[in-house]
Amino acid sequence: MTVKEVKNAICAPEGFKASALSCGLKKKGGLDLGLIYSEVPANAAGVFTANKFPAAPVILSKKHLKNGRLQAIAANSGCANCFTGKRGMISAENTADFLSSLLKIKSELIAVASTGVIGKPLDFLKIKNSLPTLIDNLSVNAGDRFAQAIMTTDTKPKELKADIFVGGRRVIVAGVAKGAGMIAPDMATMLCFITTDALILPVALKKALKAAVNESFNLISIDGCMSTNDSVIILANGIAENKIIAEGSADYYKFFRALKEICLGLAKMIIRDAEGATKFITIKVFGAKDSSQAKKAALQIANSNLFKTAVYGENPNIGRVVAAIGASGVQVGNNLRLICSSLKKKDIEIKVSLMVGAGQATVYTSDLTPEYIRINARYN
Amino acid sequence: MTVKEVKNAICAPEGFKASALSCGLKKKGGLDLGLIYSEVPANAAGVFTANKFPAAPVILSKKHLKNGRLQAIAANSGCANCFTGKRGMISAENTADFLSSLLKIKSELIAVASTGVIGKPLDFLKIKNSLPTLIDNLSVNAGDRFAQAIMTTDTKPKELKADIFVGGRRVIVAGVAKGAGMIAPDMATMLCFITTDALILPVALKKALKAAVNESFNLISIDGCMSTNDSVIILANGIAENKIIAEGSADYYKFFRALKEICLGLAKMIIRDAEGATKFITIKVFGAKDSSQAKKAALQIANSNLFKTAVYGENPNIGRVVAAIGASGVQVGNNLRLICSSLKKKDIEIKVSLMVGAGQATVYTSDLTPEYIRINARYN
Repeated sequence: MTVKEVKNAICAPEGFKASALSCGLKKKGGLDLGLIYSEVPANAAGVFTANKFPAAPVILSKKHLKNGRLQAIAANSGCANCFTGKRGMISAENTADFLSSLLKIKSELIAVASTGVIGKPLDFLKIKNSLPTLIDNLSVNAGDRFAQAIMTTDTKPKELKADIFVGGRRVIVAGVAKGAGMIAPDMATMLCFITTDALILPVALKKALKAAVNESFNLISIDGCMSTNDSVIILANGIAENKIIAEGSADYYKFFRALKEICLGLAKMIIRDAEGATKFITIKVFGAKDSSQAKKAALQIANSNLFKTAVYGENPNIGRVVAAIGASGVQVGNNLRLICSSLKKKDIEIKVSLMVGAGQATVYTSDLTPEYIRINARYN
Repeated sequence: MTVKEVKNAICAPEGFKASALSCGLKKKGGLDLGLIYSEVPANAAGVFTANKFPAAPVILSKKHLKNGRLQAIAANSGCANCFTGKRGMISAENTADFLSSLLKIKSELIAVASTGVIGKPLDFLKIKNSLPTLIDNLSVNAGDRFAQAIMTTDTKPKELKADIFVGGRRVIVAGVAKGAGMIAPDMATMLCFITTDALILPVALKKALKAAVNESFNLISIDGCMSTNDSVIILANGIAENKIIAEGSADYYKFFRALKEICLGLAKMIIRDAEGATKFITIKVFGAKDSSQAKKAALQIANSNLFKTAVYGENPNIGRVVAAIGASGVQVGNNLRLICSSLKKKDIEIKVSLMVGAGQATVYTSDLTPEYIRINARYN
């Protein structure tokens, strides 16, 4: 199984179409409204932000996912539709309802997602007026345009595709994601949509997705800021007609591996495109009491502003790694073993052994730069 | 009781002298070694970093404080003497031992403190060679020079003094502190030394200090990075000959209030002098389930890079406050009430009600600026 960066990835699995247009939500213009559509209702699962102020579309999509079935996902950038009160909730519901009547499918088969500024009202009229055209434009070639429509401070679209052979059939798993700030476990500020023509039941799909998110998006941090809109949604329309992928089977693990690689690949692309970043940093913690302690220590390093600025300055200040580990609260030995690759390169790897046990974890992060501040001092 | 910013504060209480010189530990030169000395042994207490890799001087000072008695504190900048192994520990011990023989007092009566780069070996010879002169220079006028000797990226010394009347006598409480990065609860990256001529026993002194630190240094955050060297040490030499300040008495609360105001005043001075800061931000959280939840939410806002960059950019992005509160994990109501003063001013106040209970807390922080990154990209 190989994961490839390809244009139009989400339309690669059988039976999926996409569409995107500019409806005027983004200040600077550009594509800002997108739709993913499956020819047939698909089994579906989602993983969402743990933030206590989830955006209206998150609340609605969770509700619609209760039956484990979806056929379409509408997503907009330019406005997060979060902290927008009852009107925001009504706008999210109206988006699904209006799409439902136009597509002639149940409203419960539609998920919605938003990204952009929090607290700004969503101009629903702009969306409403564009939905008929959005549907007219559905095409098997518009996956790349969809990828652009969900971008905020991202500098490039993020699309990946994997081919696997399961249950006697060739199956495609593909994903699209956006970053690029307010990125922290759990989860990153991001939207990610995954399409597959695999046949797999909702319970197994949800389990695989949760595990894949845990081993990918929950291992990255750009700025330690948890978003209100994080959403990862997968649609599995079964058109590949493979033998059903049963939980725990060899096929399940094959499918899970592909899903995980798609998620991890997109997560790394988000870090590479992090706001203002000049470095891609891999932090490997070994010798922890267990893997959760290793992850905790690694994330504390990843979220240390002092460590991140030192990397930006190519300043080999290992003391900041030590201070971060010591502040994380995890069990440590009397000493640490620390190896750091050259800071002059773009890709940097830090290996730390806590010298107490066999737990390990790897997380990914970026450096903290004046450009990050420039971007976020203005973003509104 | 009024707290005043005065030069030479720590020598204001009766019986205290100070000294400072340049021994060559600071790359750029300047005062980097200081001494505080009480004419008589003083009751003493300390509060130290919770970091799991405490610096050698922290370990030694904790040990020497076990009897609740100190007569001198030696402090250096230019090197944190942390993550420096056995040699670092021996250097800290040798500093105390050598001072002990020169001052003709027990080694256990001496505390040591260091601040500067973590992981860099301490050049003990430079300290050793300077100790005789350091003692010769002891004077009741050198408190300001001491304040300068502990500075790292601080742009100015931080000294405060309070006069109170307790147990029938006028008593002075005075403090000196340094910031200015790696500042987070618990505690800030900072050294703080407090002198008083009050008569108060070690147990009551320790209790008052702990409570004062909790309501001051533990309420500030510059960058969420917890240091390995944080130390707050108080010497109470009893020369004022007041009636002993008993725990729980009216005098105790008078003394505690003065101590707290000194600590809170110094904590705010640290925030005002935060690395690269252009804003002083007060975050007040009301309506939380309890005060610890209020503090947690307030600190999550204070440590949000996105919030801090928005304030730097005078960008009224309240969504970032909402996202931070939602990410903090504290209990929230269905809505929030948010009031923010003008971002154009240097002093900014954010008030948030979580609308669930009566818990409240106030924390202080600074904005995140390109200058913070410039400073820390180079500091080594």
